Amino acid sequence: MAENKLTALLLLSCPDNVGLVSRISHFIFERGGNILDLDEHVEQDDKRFSLRIAWDMKNFSSPPSELDDAFTPLAREFRARWNISFLEKRQRVAIFVSRHDHCLQEILWRHSIGEYGIDIPLIISNHPDLKPLAEHYSIPFHVFPIDADNKQQQETEELNLLREHSIDTVVLARYMQILSPQFIQAYPDKIINIHHSFLPAFIGGDPYKQAHLRGVKIIGATSHYVTEELDTGPIIEQDVIQITHRDTVRDLKRKGRDLERLVLARALQYHTEYRVLVCGQKTIVFQ
Amino acid sequence: MAENKLTALLLLSCPDNVGLVSRISHFIFERGGNILDLDEHVEQDDKRFSLRIAWDMKNFSSPPSELDDAFTPLAREFRARWNISFLEKRQRVAIFVSRHDHCLQEILWRHSIGEYGIDIPLIISNHPDLKPLAEHYSIPFHVFPIDADNKQQQETEELNLLREHSIDTVVLARYMQILSPQFIQAYPDKIINIHHSFLPAFIGGDPYKQAHLRGVKIIGATSHYVTEELDTGPIIEQDVIQITHRDTVRDLKRKGRDLERLVLARALQYHTEYRVLVCGQKTIVFQ
Amino acid sequence: MAENKLTALLLLSCPDNVGLVSRISHFIFERGGNILDLDEHVEQDDKRFSLRIAWDMKNFSSPPSELDDAFTPLAREFRARWNISFLEKRQRVAIFVSRHDHCLQEILWRHSIGEYGIDIPLIISNHPDLKPLAEHYSIPFHVFPIDADNKQQQETEELNLLREHSIDTVVLARYMQILSPQFIQAYPDKIINIHHSFLPAFIGGDPYKQAHLRGVKIIGATSHYVTEELDTGPIIEQDVIQITHRDTVRDLKRKGRDLERLVLARALQYHTEYRVLVCGQKTIVFQ
Amino acid sequence: MAENKLTALLLLSCPDNVGLVSRISHFIFERGGNILDLDEHVEQDDKRFSLRIAWDMKNFSSPPSELDDAFTPLAREFRARWNISFLEKRQRVAIFVSRHDHCLQEILWRHSIGEYGIDIPLIISNHPDLKPLAEHYSIPFHVFPIDADNKQQQETEELNLLREHSIDTVVLARYMQILSPQFIQAYPDKIINIHHSFLPAFIGGDPYKQAHLRGVKIIGATSHYVTEELDTGPIIEQDVIQITHRDTVRDLKRKGRDLERLVLARALQYHTEYRVLVCGQKTIVFQ
Repeated sequence: MAENKLTALLLLSCPDNVGLVSRISHFIFERGGNILDLDEHVEQDDKRFSLRIAWDMKNFSSPPSELDDAFTPLAREFRARWNISFLEKRQRVAIFVSRHDHCLQEILWRHSIGEYGIDIPLIISNHPDLKPLAEHYSIPFHVFPIDADNKQQQETEELNLLREHSIDTVVLARYMQILSPQFIQAYPDKIINIHHSFLPAFIGGDPYKQAHLRGVKIIGATSHYVTEELDTGPIIEQDVIQITHRDTVRDLKRKGRDLERLVLARALQYHTEYRVLVCGQKTIVFQ
Repeated sequence: MAENKLTALLLLSCPDNVGLVSRISHFIFERGGNILDLDEHVEQDDKRFSLRIAWDMKNFSSPPSELDDAFTPLAREFRARWNISFLEKRQRVAIFVSRHDHCLQEILWRHSIGEYGIDIPLIISNHPDLKPLAEHYSIPFHVFPIDADNKQQQETEELNLLREHSIDTVVLARYMQILSPQFIQAYPDKIINIHHSFLPAFIGGDPYKQAHLRGVKIIGATSHYVTEELDTGPIIEQDVIQITHRDTVRDLKRKGRDLERLVLARALQYHTEYRVLVCGQKTIVFQ
Repeated sequence: MAENKLTALLLLSCPDNVGLVSRISHFIFERGGNILDLDEHVEQDDKRFSLRIAWDMKNFSSPPSELDDAFTPLAREFRARWNISFLEKRQRVAIFVSRHDHCLQEILWRHSIGEYGIDIPLIISNHPDLKPLAEHYSIPFHVFPIDADNKQQQETEELNLLREHSIDTVVLARYMQILSPQFIQAYPDKIINIHHSFLPAFIGGDPYKQAHLRGVKIIGATSHYVTEELDTGPIIEQDVIQITHRDTVRDLKRKGRDLERLVLARALQYHTEYRVLVCGQKTIVFQ
Repeated sequence: MAENKLTALLLLSCPDNVGLVSRISHFIFERGGNILDLDEHVEQDDKRFSLRIAWDMKNFSSPPSELDDAFTPLAREFRARWNISFLEKRQRVAIFVSRHDHCLQEILWRHSIGEYGIDIPLIISNHPDLKPLAEHYSIPFHVFPIDADNKQQQETEELNLLREHSIDTVVLARYMQILSPQFIQAYPDKIINIHHSFLPAFIGGDPYKQAHLRGVKIIGATSHYVTEELDTGPIIEQDVIQITHRDTVRDLKRKGRDLERLVLARALQYHTEYRVLVCGQKTIVFQ
């Protein structure tokens, strides 16, 4: 890819101060970059400044490889957490599944029509059931059966495989295993899960059954980053659908499937377009 | 009101059996009633049959006052919980408020343009603040300040007042006091509350603050019947609205206000049109 | 299929009259049928009564094959348009597509996981592009290229093929050809289309471009029965999604795809569960 | 109000170019302003750049009264349409109504609890009906009955009254008269209307009746700036609600009322917070 066709993307978070936007946009302008998109936010509680800024590298005076070094002095002065990416350098995403096909189906189909600018080098499952679906989309499918005895060993091999394929992001597309802290720490804020409830309602197992018992009039789905505490990671996206007393648990599962796949698909889109900044237990999603 | 202008309304729940619809509709037909609306539901878990049926009393051969006696034998045979009401006999509703005006404002305005077929003989509050609003709509406003010492005594006087005015239904329109079990037992399935969260998420105090801390992307409001356990009574109606990281707790309160008043207004409508059947912890809302 | 495992489904529409529900439910009750679901509606404008009623044939005294004859006298007396079906006798559905895969993908996937109780004996297209998708789901795919000269001839052959396969329902899953009146008349109220706008806004070609030019803040999709006048047939289902000034026509197409496939999928579900009654230009959808 | 407590707000639109954000943010930074909020958009069709930027005037080196002069050279260079306002200088809004009270009620209530930072010096109506509501909120109410003969004269007097009260913005809160081109030209992009349909569907009179006849499954409301062509001005906000075959025209009016008042209330909020830029037939709403 020609370097001058790249779109640079800076995600940054630091204590608020006068002149941040001016000085960062000046950094880009003085090097010949054209700002394509800029969104910022100042959290009122802790006066923390967050920014997403995209610019065209076409006439940029520094090569992409030197951009990090060039920006470091400014970032240090601002005491910023930051990251510069290039939209055209495709993120490498691994998908974990079990037996439900709807979320995998949704992501692979969107991928196939070009909605995501990503690569999906592999799919990992604890069951062989969805291999034919992976094959239809020509993506390698690896089976790692999990039981109480082999879990640590299998996770180690999975992590090796992810490293071999230089995986950036892991998507749990209704993967019915709880990952170990060791696994989660290897991909901080990089593992995206879909939980089939409107979190924080109905944490844990069988949320549709819980919802049916409680008699709620609306069900939801939540996509979030995985942290060590179950179902409490930073929320990326949520959506809901109305239900009535007529809906059985089976109906909730059917209606919920449509929520789950759309919510996970949108969360993956935001993540791979570098729209998500994690701030403690919460996310900022620049749209 | 002329008796032949009445619309009769049967709400019934009993174990499912062959012929229930046929025999109940025949009961109406053979007396000359014309069915205006019929909705039924069989809960698959416990095979319980529920029915709402409305009919025109115009050519009905029994007078309204004898309808209960006439239907009793059938109801006994079906082992039914049931109730016959007449849509035109206006329910008498008391509204409890504290300092927030939005829910009271909404109900009184809808009442004033004729959306509800109810009477509102009085408003009760633990603060005097909303008296001018009550006066604008010409509804008597009674202040019962509550503190730790006088709560039992004040509730007793409130209950006396409700009995004096033959109140059928109590609406807690953001009333910021927890009612005693004694009070609740006096109006089983007749006290409607609005909680400013998507229950069962964020039970208890300051739900918007809880929602802000958790970083949810959607907030909600829930209207439910009051039971002795806080915020866990049968849910009548819920609705939600999207929020973003830009929204402060103050924004959530502003956006939530619009949810609260619409959700409570709809719950009151369903209740006063006899559309709600309570089944254990859940409701059936016939629409 | 054992005849006593069937669920009978009566859809009926007639002038309103006293005793309709009683007499129809009695017809079922006296033959030993257990009513599973009943929904009725009286249109206030023209006092027309509509009914959907489902019952269990398990202990029914007449065989399914004689049900039509048994009900005919009652139907004549009521001057009814009516139809009795059996939920377990799978409707035979043909899908027409062009080059967009999203609606076809959605229907075939739902079909594959058992959401529809239908058979899909064939897919017809004017382009070969989606053959691999049909093959993945093992459904015969027939290509009928259409141009100005051969349209009538091709439609005749398509109709022959539909008749050979005893097709009940035709789904136009983004089929980019206008059907001739002759074709439409062969399947009255049996051809389901998806239009990518919130009808009646943006009738005709390129509705997303029309929406973008007009600057609407919400876009929609509409599923309707096909009639001879373009995009004006009875509407079965509609849904919408919010957009902003940031969305390009390309974004509208992407967001709209998700609407189109869900709206068409729901319309097909309602149709194949016999929930839809066409009344003039409108539908009643019993839910 | 102390000048250093002000929040300055620049709305700007110009041909896109390299360095716009950098130079404008530098203009603010070099004078000591702290940027509170910045949102920008580049329309892909015509490469037009739009910006909304808010900053704190606390330590700003120029007084507010000289800000326009200071910014003019930059604006000229960019060939920009632009406007600088101060959030704390309250816009002066006149409301026009006829007989329906719901939109007026909504705006006056929100105004009374401080949701809008505006003044409402007067209400104008062609009917006396809503005078008591205006009085409850202590706002002068002027009646200008309109008929075919006096329309031009009455509008002239209304315009005089608006000028006397230095009105910035006119809200048509279900005002059932069509304004003359002369009136509209006096307040370009400053007259906000609410139309009770999902525009461009159902332009003109009785949109709920039109919707009922067409058999749509969703109804909507649209708030837009008034232009000389009926119901075709730039759309600010839209929302929708699901309906069913059960809903009569009367039900649509009831459900639609809730849409109308919320949609108009939000449009007024966006307008008075200087979030709306009109671009030809469309708006950009910065949120």
